[in-house]
Amino acid sequence: MHAYRTHTCAALRAGNVGETVRLSGWVHRVRDHGGVLFIDLRDHYGVTQVICDGDSAAFATLESVRAEWVIRIDGVVKARAADLVNPKIATGEIEVYAREVEVLSAADELPLPVFGEVEYPEETRLRYRFLDLRRESLHANIMLRSNVIAYLRDAMRAQGFTEFQTPILTASSPEGARDFLVPSRLHPGKFYALPQAPQQFKQLTMVAGFDRYFQIAPCFRDEDPRADRSPGEFYQLDMEMSFATQEDVFQVIEPVMRGVFEEFGGGRPVTPEFPRIAYRDSMLWYGSDKPDLRNPIRMQIVSEHFAGSGFKVFASLLEQPGNEVRAIPAPGGGSRKFCDRMNAFAQSEGLPGMGYIFWRKGEDGATEAAGPLAKNIGPERTEAIRTQLGLKEGDAAFFLGGKPSKFQAVAGKARNVIGKELGLTDEERFDFAWIVDFPMYELDEETDRLDFSHNPFSMPQGGLEALETMNPLDVLGYQYDIVCNGVELSSGAVRNHKPEIMYKAFGVVGYPKEHVDAHFGGMLSAFRYGAPPHAGIAPGVDRIVMLLAGAENIREVIMYPMNQRAEDLMMGAPSEPTNEQLKDLQLRVVPKG
Amino acid sequence: MHAYRTHTCAALRAGNVGETVRLSGWVHRVRDHGGVLFIDLRDHYGVTQVICDGDSAAFATLESVRAEWVIRIDGVVKARAADLVNPKIATGEIEVYAREVEVLSAADELPLPVFGEVEYPEETRLRYRFLDLRRESLHANIMLRSNVIAYLRDAMRAQGFTEFQTPILTASSPEGARDFLVPSRLHPGKFYALPQAPQQFKQLTMVAGFDRYFQIAPCFRDEDPRADRSPGEFYQLDMEMSFATQEDVFQVIEPVMRGVFEEFGGGRPVTPEFPRIAYRDSMLWYGSDKPDLRNPIRMQIVSEHFAGSGFKVFASLLEQPGNEVRAIPAPGGGSRKFCDRMNAFAQSEGLPGMGYIFWRKGEDGATEAAGPLAKNIGPERTEAIRTQLGLKEGDAAFFLGGKPSKFQAVAGKARNVIGKELGLTDEERFDFAWIVDFPMYELDEETDRLDFSHNPFSMPQGGLEALETMNPLDVLGYQYDIVCNGVELSSGAVRNHKPEIMYKAFGVVGYPKEHVDAHFGGMLSAFRYGAPPHAGIAPGVDRIVMLLAGAENIREVIMYPMNQRAEDLMMGAPSEPTNEQLKDLQLRVVPKG
Repeated sequence: MHAYRTHTCAALRAGNVGETVRLSGWVHRVRDHGGVLFIDLRDHYGVTQVICDGDSAAFATLESVRAEWVIRIDGVVKARAADLVNPKIATGEIEVYAREVEVLSAADELPLPVFGEVEYPEETRLRYRFLDLRRESLHANIMLRSNVIAYLRDAMRAQGFTEFQTPILTASSPEGARDFLVPSRLHPGKFYALPQAPQQFKQLTMVAGFDRYFQIAPCFRDEDPRADRSPGEFYQLDMEMSFATQEDVFQVIEPVMRGVFEEFGGGRPVTPEFPRIAYRDSMLWYGSDKPDLRNPIRMQIVSEHFAGSGFKVFASLLEQPGNEVRAIPAPGGGSRKFCDRMNAFAQSEGLPGMGYIFWRKGEDGATEAAGPLAKNIGPERTEAIRTQLGLKEGDAAFFLGGKPSKFQAVAGKARNVIGKELGLTDEERFDFAWIVDFPMYELDEETDRLDFSHNPFSMPQGGLEALETMNPLDVLGYQYDIVCNGVELSSGAVRNHKPEIMYKAFGVVGYPKEHVDAHFGGMLSAFRYGAPPHAGIAPGVDRIVMLLAGAENIREVIMYPMNQRAEDLMMGAPSEPTNEQLKDLQLRVVPKG
Repeated sequence: MHAYRTHTCAALRAGNVGETVRLSGWVHRVRDHGGVLFIDLRDHYGVTQVICDGDSAAFATLESVRAEWVIRIDGVVKARAADLVNPKIATGEIEVYAREVEVLSAADELPLPVFGEVEYPEETRLRYRFLDLRRESLHANIMLRSNVIAYLRDAMRAQGFTEFQTPILTASSPEGARDFLVPSRLHPGKFYALPQAPQQFKQLTMVAGFDRYFQIAPCFRDEDPRADRSPGEFYQLDMEMSFATQEDVFQVIEPVMRGVFEEFGGGRPVTPEFPRIAYRDSMLWYGSDKPDLRNPIRMQIVSEHFAGSGFKVFASLLEQPGNEVRAIPAPGGGSRKFCDRMNAFAQSEGLPGMGYIFWRKGEDGATEAAGPLAKNIGPERTEAIRTQLGLKEGDAAFFLGGKPSKFQAVAGKARNVIGKELGLTDEERFDFAWIVDFPMYELDEETDRLDFSHNPFSMPQGGLEALETMNPLDVLGYQYDIVCNGVELSSGAVRNHKPEIMYKAFGVVGYPKEHVDAHFGGMLSAFRYGAPPHAGIAPGVDRIVMLLAGAENIREVIMYPMNQRAEDLMMGAPSEPTNEQLKDLQLRVVPKG
């Protein structure tokens, strides 16, 4: 017989009744029912009920075990009486009568109970993560995460992608967030950096002739922690492909994403074909480039109905070029109380407020537009608005005016709140979209200067010719985001693999060739020795798992996370180095100057 | 038609003749045969021959392309004449007549040719790694590595193991090699460390109730580089299992290792059942705990034949307790020339020399023992030695005497040289073994004090009782190595999960409880809340791939390795930090004091 077990704690069934078995696991719960002990014995796989009474040689020991002790028992499988069968667990038809027991490991008084998953302060949970992880829900999240990653790997390999490991000790990135640095002992005063992403390596891998790369890639950013961002490290499904267009990336990634959400989403529907929404449309319709499409509300431009109208605020706004009035339709929001609450919401977000109209049954039985705005612009215009927005009695619409860049973020938030409050947003779905056609450039409104709006290394649509002939603000990039339920899972792009287009792209925002060479010389040099056109994306693994698990905090989907102050409370990191370590590295810690 | 290709450069066959196709790839080689251009077009998948003549619109451009340009061609598939079929490549039956061409990326003069794989200085190869990787052999090694890793993952998953990611930014290890440190910005003066191995995390994962863990784990050691060790980072197939014995680990890992070598070993035979060799036997038989079993030579103790013999050096040595004489049999080594060369080898390794006997046909036609030693000890003893070692005419034996710990390493090396020189070692095999029963303790011969011989955290065989009752030098650990062709792939162990046995194990070598608590408190604390018995191992991925690829240098099996000075010449790491970075971290670089 095996030293520890013949079966796991999830294995025994009615068919095993009468067998002598050996089980090992944790004491999940002990109950003493008048001289009969009932022990729920738990392992990774499940729970088995162990019973014992005074006739058993195991009784004296089992009487003394407490929660989370690890024990091995030898016993006989018995059928439970029909009324005692527990259909909630796989082993619910049987119990094991213990004849022998060995305590494999006793447990001290627990700082954190496992059974029942009582709420506990995060600090305790992180310090005793090895106990926290025994809890059913966290255990399930971590297994989900592993299964998701295994699925992603299989799905990428099935499409002909190969996983390569890129270096973790590498060079400082020329862009992006703050690097973690690693001092070099062999080269005192010099530092490695941990990769913010394997962006340069994956592009070099394409230049090196490997056609389809992916990696479940650890990435490191020394950023201040947030609920959806782990301090320090995170993982992405990094991918890149050669001789590929934007469409090729979509054709690869869309089935992988749909597949993983169908497989692990608990049956919740997943967008069958991901819509492609131009960045400008997304900003107009949803006030965001990461719209939550579970919410059916789409905003519209309604400037024409307010131009020259009796609502002077909007009418005079619209006399300035660049200003617009946009409407957020709110089906079912047709009450003054709701409209006032939304108006207050806009004020809490720093806007003067949101005008609104709502439609109710008038005293004559006909539909009537109500609210202060309606009075100001009159029935003809309100009716035109209602028709344009496709609204009816019992509905409302909210209005924001001015420069869209000033109000659209709040409009987007208001859309989310309206969708949620009115029950329009179906929470039990996964709604995906591709956001495409990002502009290459934007005008910095403070300085009135051109700048890259997103990634300077994306290929401009139309290539060199577009850069040379078009208004830069009209040039779009082959750049795309994948969005699910309002969460951006990743940005991706067709890369700019041609040095002459790179120089020109930077030239548009005022950087001379020398600047580009100085900052991005490594990639440019590689592109001079035969670079294939290539494109890629890198969906965030942690975010995918958070969506699937319905977790609000990223620490619920990471096995050993750091706390919000970037500390590992269990291992005691970071910690003071020894003098010898500092001496080896030729470093001195200086007090804050 | 796709923007870049309808087929890869490995796809076209005779069945495609007549089709219009589009191919993209690198110009591997161009030949101009009197107005007809032959271009080998290469991509990740293979090579296709493209032809072009003056009748084609593509001719002018194709005449100008040079090696490693990236081009797209449109053309028609043609059958090659029977005598021009190239059976060495998958597309050898066809060629593509180019009608149109687009240069996707030109290439400057190459610092390193791709075609032909001419030898080049390592510095150039690393600086232009993206070119080096285009070479067929390195490309194949990197693909082999990826395929091996994918195989390992599948094999572990098939056995019910789950991959978990453990932190990369973590705490300094209490033991082992030098850590890489990462300064914390949020906690100036404190440092994270990169994990030397996820040893503590995987054990905590067992304590947390996950039953079967594995990870293709990045590990980091700030050690001085060697040919078989990459500076900085390396990967291991890290695994751990709960409620498991040594035997369970063998049953999991042995088929995985055998499988990967059978799958990727090019048909070379792999040990069908790995022998288990006790550490003491391995040291005796092979002079090493990582024996190359492709070499059939086994050393033996032959003290009895020299005790009281006429060979005074050995005879007087053997009067001291602890001394021994061991023989290395050398079948086929029976010539004075060979024996003298081996004797010189031992001298070059710092020993006074190796005595030898060889057996030749005597003048009377009978087998005769020759060499100075034979004369000293006489025919009866030489014959007894020959019989014990199973040797015959034409064979030799070498002898080393003294304290085994002083000579057995050289004996092991001599065994290797003898095996190779005499052609006894079959290079075309993978010979595995488990080395087991490592002693827990050894005597430091300088200080005459007890110390741990290997891993202090392994479970002693016999548990607490063994530690309390046995001579410590006789206590064995549940510790094991897996060895292939003389390369140690990994150490593993059943872990000591009981605090009281841990204290006792350290007590034996003189460490008080307080020392253990101070240095290993984290793990001990976890073991106090219910720890399952657990065991594991962590075979080195880089070494497995080196063995399979027949690579002598680890840089041949890593995509982006650092050089011997731990520099990434392509990315320019490590590099000087900015003043701002140092200020953020509150660090100052100090000149060597």
